[in-house]
Amino acid sequence: MPITARRRVTRIADDSREIRFDSLVAEEPLEIRVGGRPLAVTMRTPGNDFELATGFLLTEGLISGRADVATISYCPGPDTQRFNVLDVALTPGVQPPPEHATRPFVTTSSCGLCGKASIASVRSKSVHDVAGDPLCLPTTLLCALPGRMRQAQSLFDRTGGLHAAGLFDATGRLVCVREDVGRHNAFDKVIGWAAMGGLVPLREHLILASGRASFELVQKALMAGIPFLAAVSAPSSLAAELAEEAGMTLVGFLRGETMNVYAGAERVI
Amino acid sequence: MPITARRRVTRIADDSREIRFDSLVAEEPLEIRVGGRPLAVTMRTPGNDFELATGFLLTEGLISGRADVATISYCPGPDTQRFNVLDVALTPGVQPPPEHATRPFVTTSSCGLCGKASIASVRSKSVHDVAGDPLCLPTTLLCALPGRMRQAQSLFDRTGGLHAAGLFDATGRLVCVREDVGRHNAFDKVIGWAAMGGLVPLREHLILASGRASFELVQKALMAGIPFLAAVSAPSSLAAELAEEAGMTLVGFLRGETMNVYAGAERVI
Repeated sequence: MPITARRRVTRIADDSREIRFDSLVAEEPLEIRVGGRPLAVTMRTPGNDFELATGFLLTEGLISGRADVATISYCPGPDTQRFNVLDVALTPGVQPPPEHATRPFVTTSSCGLCGKASIASVRSKSVHDVAGDPLCLPTTLLCALPGRMRQAQSLFDRTGGLHAAGLFDATGRLVCVREDVGRHNAFDKVIGWAAMGGLVPLREHLILASGRASFELVQKALMAGIPFLAAVSAPSSLAAELAEEAGMTLVGFLRGETMNVYAGAERVI
Repeated sequence: MPITARRRVTRIADDSREIRFDSLVAEEPLEIRVGGRPLAVTMRTPGNDFELATGFLLTEGLISGRADVATISYCPGPDTQRFNVLDVALTPGVQPPPEHATRPFVTTSSCGLCGKASIASVRSKSVHDVAGDPLCLPTTLLCALPGRMRQAQSLFDRTGGLHAAGLFDATGRLVCVREDVGRHNAFDKVIGWAAMGGLVPLREHLILASGRASFELVQKALMAGIPFLAAVSAPSSLAAELAEEAGMTLVGFLRGETMNVYAGAERVI
């Protein structure tokens, strides 16, 4: 399935009009089924779908690693949707998702629904402790990471911008980069790639987000055992709170030679 | 409920470190109930929650305007979640959402799950025809819109960036702007504001997105009867396809004196 589409576009600049063809990033729905039962539909950029499904299940706390997945396969269907529905068969003995797993938070009268409860819910699901992770990175290395990711973004140059996630090791080497119309999908693809390779928990790794750092992205990093999240743009307050409570380092506005550290500043040297 | 939070941050620039306090945009879960039954949970920036709920229900095709809503109220609960759960009481006779309305697309064996089916699904839900809308806007006026919206963004200056949606009339006047950690929420708040004022369908209006134009944003504009969507960044291919099929004008990369028109170029004069 193509991940870009050529489209006719009218380019207007300083009173001139020109018809030309541009590449647009593709966006298609993906339905993720588990054991044949529909679990979630996400609008995503086609490609790396098995990684996306694996990362989604892992960061939602529904699987703990590749050992929990028996097979992943596209579901047969009409040609147009052939690669838009996939089914994950769990390893025998692994508990299937609860009925209402598609809702981001299960609310009960005891825990309520608020930022604190959201943090508590993620903390209770997370099986990896990132607080003791020894990763330390010098500022000069951190400042180089956005440029390294940008160079590796193949789609960005052709389509003029979409979300990216990059996974770096302790030496600053880019080990995986994924792009998607949805930033949560880019994270899931990177984390799913790691999970399929048996690399989770991702101790002494950093994940870089091309845009803002939301609560959801911190949650995904935490579920994969990543101790360091850096973002080119701003974090939300709840993202910073979750990072601090979990002992994760959260850097925002990583641009040029400057950055803001919102949690875990001891890892920035 | 505060929409920004002050947090301690370590600012690092050129080998210097400084501890200071920054404003971060707030992010909290909101549960939308209809008739007491939980329908959806979204992570959002608190504020304008009734608009958000109204816009969400309208753009999902579950209500057609303010006449379908009897009352909206926050649900009683512990202090921490007091403004994070709301209930929409529908006007007697209005059909409640189907059981699985939280899923973005209902898939059936006949329609399948793909971009074309997604477009068909939106087209079938949409009750407003934007194709014949007479709105025409000169390029000079269009180029001024991002600056006008930016000036009206109160949160952006304090928090360093989040998503915004702005509604403009045919003279280029900004009639409503909303900001949120989620761009779909910013759209829902603007559209919900209009719906609560009885302004839907929003004929001869333009909606401006501060970032990318996804399929979901075109869908929301279409469901509100808006004939013109402009975005500061790139659209996806499916967004452009839906706009073209619906007769909506879609402009992307609206920056400085230039823009790309992906559909409905006849409205740009």
